[in-house]
Amino acid sequence: MTDRPIHALTATDAALKIARGELTSEQLVRACLERVTLRETHVRAFAHIDFDKAIEQARHYDRGPHRGLLHGVPVAFKDIVDSADFPSTYNSPIWAGNQPRSDAACIGMSKAAGGVVVGKTVTTEFANITPGPTRNPHDLSRTPGGSSQGSAAAVADGMVPLAIGTQTTGSTIRPAAYCGIVGYKPTFGDFVRGGMKVASDSLDTISILARSVDDCALWRAALIGTTLPDLRWPKDRKPRIAVCRTKVWNEADAATQRMIEECAERLVKAGASVGEAPLPREFDGLWDAHRDISSFEAARNFTWERTTHRDQLSPAFRDGRISQGESCPYDRYRSALELAARCRWEIGAIWDRFDLLLTPAAPGEAPVGITATGSAVFNGIWTLLYTPCITIPGWSGPAGMPIGPQLVAPRGEDIRLLALARWVQERLDLSRNAPIARIVEASTSADS
Amino acid sequence: MTDRPIHALTATDAALKIARGELTSEQLVRACLERVTLRETHVRAFAHIDFDKAIEQARHYDRGPHRGLLHGVPVAFKDIVDSADFPSTYNSPIWAGNQPRSDAACIGMSKAAGGVVVGKTVTTEFANITPGPTRNPHDLSRTPGGSSQGSAAAVADGMVPLAIGTQTTGSTIRPAAYCGIVGYKPTFGDFVRGGMKVASDSLDTISILARSVDDCALWRAALIGTTLPDLRWPKDRKPRIAVCRTKVWNEADAATQRMIEECAERLVKAGASVGEAPLPREFDGLWDAHRDISSFEAARNFTWERTTHRDQLSPAFRDGRISQGESCPYDRYRSALELAARCRWEIGAIWDRFDLLLTPAAPGEAPVGITATGSAVFNGIWTLLYTPCITIPGWSGPAGMPIGPQLVAPRGEDIRLLALARWVQERLDLSRNAPIARIVEASTSADS
Repeated sequence: MTDRPIHALTATDAALKIARGELTSEQLVRACLERVTLRETHVRAFAHIDFDKAIEQARHYDRGPHRGLLHGVPVAFKDIVDSADFPSTYNSPIWAGNQPRSDAACIGMSKAAGGVVVGKTVTTEFANITPGPTRNPHDLSRTPGGSSQGSAAAVADGMVPLAIGTQTTGSTIRPAAYCGIVGYKPTFGDFVRGGMKVASDSLDTISILARSVDDCALWRAALIGTTLPDLRWPKDRKPRIAVCRTKVWNEADAATQRMIEECAERLVKAGASVGEAPLPREFDGLWDAHRDISSFEAARNFTWERTTHRDQLSPAFRDGRISQGESCPYDRYRSALELAARCRWEIGAIWDRFDLLLTPAAPGEAPVGITATGSAVFNGIWTLLYTPCITIPGWSGPAGMPIGPQLVAPRGEDIRLLALARWVQERLDLSRNAPIARIVEASTSADS
Repeated sequence: MTDRPIHALTATDAALKIARGELTSEQLVRACLERVTLRETHVRAFAHIDFDKAIEQARHYDRGPHRGLLHGVPVAFKDIVDSADFPSTYNSPIWAGNQPRSDAACIGMSKAAGGVVVGKTVTTEFANITPGPTRNPHDLSRTPGGSSQGSAAAVADGMVPLAIGTQTTGSTIRPAAYCGIVGYKPTFGDFVRGGMKVASDSLDTISILARSVDDCALWRAALIGTTLPDLRWPKDRKPRIAVCRTKVWNEADAATQRMIEECAERLVKAGASVGEAPLPREFDGLWDAHRDISSFEAARNFTWERTTHRDQLSPAFRDGRISQGESCPYDRYRSALELAARCRWEIGAIWDRFDLLLTPAAPGEAPVGITATGSAVFNGIWTLLYTPCITIPGWSGPAGMPIGPQLVAPRGEDIRLLALARWVQERLDLSRNAPIARIVEASTSADS
């Protein structure tokens, strides 16, 4: 168990302390809320938060009985999923004051497992391109990434150990990497979407922002309603890992390319076999296919918004994804879906040879400025291929900002992915570089 | 153009008459509402309806300009998709009085094309098993089928030419066959689900209840936002059709089996090649896979309902799908998804040999009684395989109730499906048996 301030504990450590009676949910929630009080004016991670409600819920759980895997642990949700306790505004003036009647499935499952819902985190407008006010906790002049920007910033800053994000292109992996935390996008569909404001039926994937791989496994089990998995990789089995550069490799900066290559070298020394897995030429079409699918579906799912409140959409969203989708012919959309279906099948040949792919999570560090959220060029194809993926922290770029690799496993092999992510972290001794520890220390001394 | 009373026109004929100035939207809507007034106390097709609003909208459209493919045509929507103009209650007391803020994508796209939204049709509870009060227009002692029961009954009875349904197992094809109308489930995902109360992310498919194949093509174009397709089958191309009995063939009654076999014989005489397409043995697992997927996802999507209002769920839903889903292990769910993915790929071998499959739409006529909605045993696998399918009327069972075949085409080949459905109707001269004409005539003389 790490020796951190209470508000910076992992969810796993916090849940264990609560279960052992070493910590109450109220203490934990209060510690997190104090952190919010200290930092929120700078970081702006939350769209809606209710201190009293959270403390009341924590006290309620403290009176027992033990509810489940998340018992007493504070959690937050991107403001793109509905909650009966908070407004859903999707960072759009069109939805100002909207109060849903029910909890989204991911919120209901979390509550059922004992999670304390602290609030809703800032999303870009409709989880698309136009950012909210959130800043990167590591450097307030920089973006935390998007679209799950509030979730990534809140977890990275020590405000809450777990937050739900979503990923349609790179909206979980990218902000996690920019903020130096763990981002985990499961196999498409593993966390059902009931109560989510859907943009793309074929792509939207509910995902997790967390401080450790174990925390992803913990919340995954709660969200699915299953038991905790065993994340130990078999001692007698050599992980077969492949570097997957993809056609956009040259868009990664030097530090990121070096990180992937050093990571590969160190993994060989650590006992893995490491090869190269170039994607078949046909996969080159997946970037355009992703754009066509996400645009086509968004233009239709946002029909009410674009036909009745068009002037209240941000110009970047309206003239970007919406316009692209309105002008994308159905046949092109259909071809894109069929290409994706073929590639989902054909990637099986790679999985016959490798357990895991190693690829960048983002082109580099979080860019300076908060009017854009960085590039998702390394993410969209994995969303479209429905493969689970995770980014783990432990490296820094030229400006000292976190960067991290992305690990990818076959569809349905999420437990393998998490087990290998932990194997990589342990063998490469990454935890000593954990940005969460650094940031909590640095910002506490700076701000208090 | 058929010579029917105004309220019994097809949407295509009505749209054409409006475009030509031979009919106003107001006249059409009033004719439909008069039909509702005459028959609704018997049929109970609507959950929410607003005469004044519909007439006002029709007048608004009549003042111009021409809005699109559905200009002035009344349409209705299953009460499982949200509308800004009507409550969404999903036939559940849990959602009594719920008024959504926005229109579902399918409603918004219909309005944008000039459709007049008349109201919301009765769904079974959450589009699952527990029926509402709707009766079969052909015989009020019988079920119209489910779950899109109000939509099927309204279209069959002459209340509205078009209604949206959804299909998770057999909720569109079965009620359409029972009510003697056309039911069309498109390729999975073609009509995006934004604003729908989702039960199963992997299965729920927004679908069309209509009076003609052309009407399906018309609304499909409006819902997708594309132009009207050419449904003429090439004169020089012999349709390659295969009877697909599936492993549940023996659950079809004698009349239904005879219908399929006679249909096959007549299609040969009409110029098609007709073979047999037995499904590979692996496909036998799809029935169980469908049950596991639909239950697993429903139990999670309805987390809020089952954890906070469990006593307000019907016993059949709670102890059926919800309980099954709660007890289905994740690994079984995952295996079911992977089996479906493999079969979606492997069915390609059948499509190399055939253009279209011919299979029952339901085991027989609509059963007597309205406490159950009949069997979906002939439907679930096509929903799971994501293939477009359609049922067309023109046959009767032993009690004189409508029965019909189901036609199935490859994923993405919806235009081929609609073109071949029309080819079959024309070559077999089915329109003389159109139940819509019979019912309108019979019930008008009986009730007025």
